[in-house]
Amino acid sequence: MFKQIFQIKNSEKFEGQTVTAQGWVYQSRSSGKIKFLILRDGTGLMQCVLFKGECQEAAFLDFEKITQESAIEVSGKIKKEPRSPGGYEMGVQTLKILHIAENYPISPKEHGVEFLMHNRHLWIRSQRQWAALKVRAEVIKAICEFYDERGFIRFDAPILTPSACEGTTTLFGTDYFDEKAYLSQSGQLYGETGAMAFGNIYVFGPTFRAEKSKTRKHLTEFWMIEPEMAFYDLDDNMKLAEEFVEYVIQTVVSRKHQELKILERDLSKLENVRAPFPRVSYDEAIKVLDKRGVSVPWGEDFGAPHEAALGEEFKKPVFIHHMPSQIKAFYFKQCNEVGGPPAVKSNGRYALGCDLIAPDGYGEIIGGGQREDDLETLKLRIQEHGLSEDDYRWYLDLRRYGSVPHAGFGMGLERTVAWITGVEHVRETVPYPRMLNTLRP
Amino acid sequence: MFKQIFQIKNSEKFEGQTVTAQGWVYQSRSSGKIKFLILRDGTGLMQCVLFKGECQEAAFLDFEKITQESAIEVSGKIKKEPRSPGGYEMGVQTLKILHIAENYPISPKEHGVEFLMHNRHLWIRSQRQWAALKVRAEVIKAICEFYDERGFIRFDAPILTPSACEGTTTLFGTDYFDEKAYLSQSGQLYGETGAMAFGNIYVFGPTFRAEKSKTRKHLTEFWMIEPEMAFYDLDDNMKLAEEFVEYVIQTVVSRKHQELKILERDLSKLENVRAPFPRVSYDEAIKVLDKRGVSVPWGEDFGAPHEAALGEEFKKPVFIHHMPSQIKAFYFKQCNEVGGPPAVKSNGRYALGCDLIAPDGYGEIIGGGQREDDLETLKLRIQEHGLSEDDYRWYLDLRRYGSVPHAGFGMGLERTVAWITGVEHVRETVPYPRMLNTLRP
Repeated sequence: MFKQIFQIKNSEKFEGQTVTAQGWVYQSRSSGKIKFLILRDGTGLMQCVLFKGECQEAAFLDFEKITQESAIEVSGKIKKEPRSPGGYEMGVQTLKILHIAENYPISPKEHGVEFLMHNRHLWIRSQRQWAALKVRAEVIKAICEFYDERGFIRFDAPILTPSACEGTTTLFGTDYFDEKAYLSQSGQLYGETGAMAFGNIYVFGPTFRAEKSKTRKHLTEFWMIEPEMAFYDLDDNMKLAEEFVEYVIQTVVSRKHQELKILERDLSKLENVRAPFPRVSYDEAIKVLDKRGVSVPWGEDFGAPHEAALGEEFKKPVFIHHMPSQIKAFYFKQCNEVGGPPAVKSNGRYALGCDLIAPDGYGEIIGGGQREDDLETLKLRIQEHGLSEDDYRWYLDLRRYGSVPHAGFGMGLERTVAWITGVEHVRETVPYPRMLNTLRP
Repeated sequence: MFKQIFQIKNSEKFEGQTVTAQGWVYQSRSSGKIKFLILRDGTGLMQCVLFKGECQEAAFLDFEKITQESAIEVSGKIKKEPRSPGGYEMGVQTLKILHIAENYPISPKEHGVEFLMHNRHLWIRSQRQWAALKVRAEVIKAICEFYDERGFIRFDAPILTPSACEGTTTLFGTDYFDEKAYLSQSGQLYGETGAMAFGNIYVFGPTFRAEKSKTRKHLTEFWMIEPEMAFYDLDDNMKLAEEFVEYVIQTVVSRKHQELKILERDLSKLENVRAPFPRVSYDEAIKVLDKRGVSVPWGEDFGAPHEAALGEEFKKPVFIHHMPSQIKAFYFKQCNEVGGPPAVKSNGRYALGCDLIAPDGYGEIIGGGQREDDLETLKLRIQEHGLSEDDYRWYLDLRRYGSVPHAGFGMGLERTVAWITGVEHVRETVPYPRMLNTLRP
């Protein structure tokens, strides 16, 4: 049987019982005949109290030796105590020291971010980091649940790829025996092959961008969830995306209440995230931005201030669709007017794309759209983008052998977790963030 | 609402109803007044029958145009038919051609593996590949379920790392701005930091080995699941591992019966995989191998023939534990006699490792053990292995600040899927295998 011991998160079940708990000393203080410590066991925090005369004498003496993050084993009775972090407290009878920690570098006082990042392996033991990473784990769980329950097949795309999905300037390259390989920026093109084999699939894995950006929204290594669906058009795609985002947010809010409380997240804002989301064409968005004093010339991409303004306008996640095709990748299906028929073998003014902008400045968390499914049109796009038809032989094959309308999108995990947790910077949404100048620990 | 249309896998629910199905033509044949086709919609195969006079005349004529893998839409009534692949058949009334496929390269005749690998993006539409990848998706689901249900926190380790876990000869390197990064071979060391923050964690992601091996068990890119548990010893570790393997096997067998039937897997062998598994020390295993005529000198690692012999001897997955420390990595806790006390600050003869060997020649699917938790002993090991203490500063910190006994293991996803599906080569257990000479598609 799986090793089942007392865990702080399950204290309730042990009320009135004498148990043994193992963990680390989060805090401690003495006050004459009473000594307190907060025990951290990885599942939660619990106050432990030692009364002189009620606990073993050795325990009372050993208490003086323990330092922050020392490993200990304590035994005692569990009782309700609203002032204890998890609502339960242990009246300690015995205390066993497992390891005395050296002078722990992270004290309750303020530390600079650089120092904390340098000690990321220890920082993750702190309450806020611990809570944010627990939310991350729950977001992943909710993501997989959503697709698994709907019969989507998980389809892992390769990380090592011979050519780039969108240009080569932001790629990490490596020698692959006698040739050159690049770390994947997206599993989408592979995902499309999966959609033709399984109908509905999702890719979920790490992706890489060698961008020199130093913003609070960029990592060089981040996880993406990329569903791809045969027989879906742009509208179906947006419907799925909004249902998905609502599911993830509401599921995580309901299951990770305690962690979001530690993070002081305003839950009312998250509870408000319900589908359907507003849908605004790029042309309409341009007008909104103009009105809000952050004009964008037609044909240019939106930046952080524009995304922030759109978030403020709509207060909810908002879809921007039908972007100028000149700013979108080669694989988008195109049209010449919003809602009009597809542009075949000619340059369409609009791409059948849809991006989802999160509110409160968290920016674009989803990018996707309907894919070009006509062989000759796609060949033309590949040419126009200066790409090699030979590199995309297999991708073009999808348009040779039973081509069907299909669509999909990618959601960035870390940005979504940043939005849900309300943390300032994506670096706190992943155990070991990778950024410009950050490769350690 | 999520787009809900008729899917072949749910035919049963639509018995007697007239539905529309979209998909691809898997096979077709004409015989006078009756025409048959097998429709593939990604969720399954279904026989569709066109009777002259009962279906639309246009449908009967259009049938002659369709080729293998053409995309079509058919409408008609669903009825029970044991001779149809999924047990249900459609009596077609209308047939709409969505896309006529060019001459499809993969015909029902035999093809060479090289040709199929070159067309991997199409090969995955074939029944056996489709079934194997569906089993893979279910294995991943079962893995995550197992740990999530037991309160383990998913903890993603970075792929881009500054130094190697076990030597640098088999690493893929990349320029990381102004320094050098390597693709991770294992998330274990990072996982250990997670265990100290969360108690029990699991890492699940792709890992990389630039090995020039050309065997049926090696990929350069493969997924690993790596649980790591605070307060676990070697024995706890083996208990968890065997419970885990039993869970994955039995869950997948019960849920993916149809796919395993397509793969012609002998299910009785899998149903027999029940914990506890035999545990054999390395020294005992040496004797078994000697008896079976595949001797190994003490102190050498086992190879494929030895793993095969152990599989034959025990017929079940078998743990090999207490290997010679000279063949194990620096982070293993050591001892001088099997079951004896830990070797502190001296060279122990044995490492507290445990490998799990799958039967039927599928080889090692799990490698793990108890980690060294004494700071000075670990420093000594790092020296002995010629590694730099500075590179492991953060790893050593775990032994400075509340060091506790802990253990963990790694299970290779693709080898496990190969074992469950019974396929000959791991290349069929992942959508796009990466091997020596294989980087495309």
